[in-house]
Amino acid sequence: MPSRATAGYGHGVEQRLSLVTLGVGDLEGARRFYEVLGWETQAAPGDDVVFFQAGPIVVALWDRSGLAEDSGVEDGGGWGGVTLAHNVSTPAEVDEVIEQARAAGGRITREPGKTFWGGYSGVFTDPEGHPWEVAHNPGWKLNEDGSVTLG
Amino acid sequence: MPSRATAGYGHGVEQRLSLVTLGVGDLEGARRFYEVLGWETQAAPGDDVVFFQAGPIVVALWDRSGLAEDSGVEDGGGWGGVTLAHNVSTPAEVDEVIEQARAAGGRITREPGKTFWGGYSGVFTDPEGHPWEVAHNPGWKLNEDGSVTLG
Repeated sequence: MPSRATAGYGHGVEQRLSLVTLGVGDLEGARRFYEVLGWETQAAPGDDVVFFQAGPIVVALWDRSGLAEDSGVEDGGGWGGVTLAHNVSTPAEVDEVIEQARAAGGRITREPGKTFWGGYSGVFTDPEGHPWEVAHNPGWKLNEDGSVTLG
Repeated sequence: MPSRATAGYGHGVEQRLSLVTLGVGDLEGARRFYEVLGWETQAAPGDDVVFFQAGPIVVALWDRSGLAEDSGVEDGGGWGGVTLAHNVSTPAEVDEVIEQARAAGGRITREPGKTFWGGYSGVFTDPEGHPWEVAHNPGWKLNEDGSVTLG
């Protein structure tokens, strides 16, 4: 019997995202930012790729020009239509994480506040300009293992 | 006692990614692409945001200019340094998913093959130019619930 991990392919591509790679110009600086936020990596100093176990998936930092080449795309040079989100359990935690990002040198591109969709969020960008929304969505279930379930 | 979901904040920001939002110019076209791949959403026809439960996290499609404004960033207009990955259990599954992406109208920007890091992968872009690497990484553990664990 096929495992659940492979059984889906007869019906199409499984709904799964395993890894988000963020292209960076200054790997050391980007790595330091996430480490100052409290993130831990097993990467050795000087490694050219830095993996963070981000709850159930993986976030990686890698050279942006190498990532463009590896992905077979042209680099537009700025933001390219992808925003990440870090969901938390309460509005107060949104404020707390935004303050930690600010203290770590992140740029707050939207101060925390109520959102049009009935939640509460703010946005910071990392030193490479990748935006993270820090959000409390009362309609979603945030699970102990870091996963999130649509309401 | 604080739950695991909140206990981390004294030590910094939890290592967690909850949601990846892909900005799109043609929401209907992008939605159709992922649906042809086999992804399912609870969004009603005509909804202006489309959420997919992607294993343990969420992938959303939303208007790209709205996302830029909401994120407080300028749109560079092209690729912006983020590549997603969908990990599978075998090289043969990489080939299979790449063929499904090709059949759904995705552009294959790197045909499947062995990689410099010892795995096997290919890359497609969705109709909006967002790249997905489809990868078999023998050093990572792909779990039944769709989560991935660093080796």
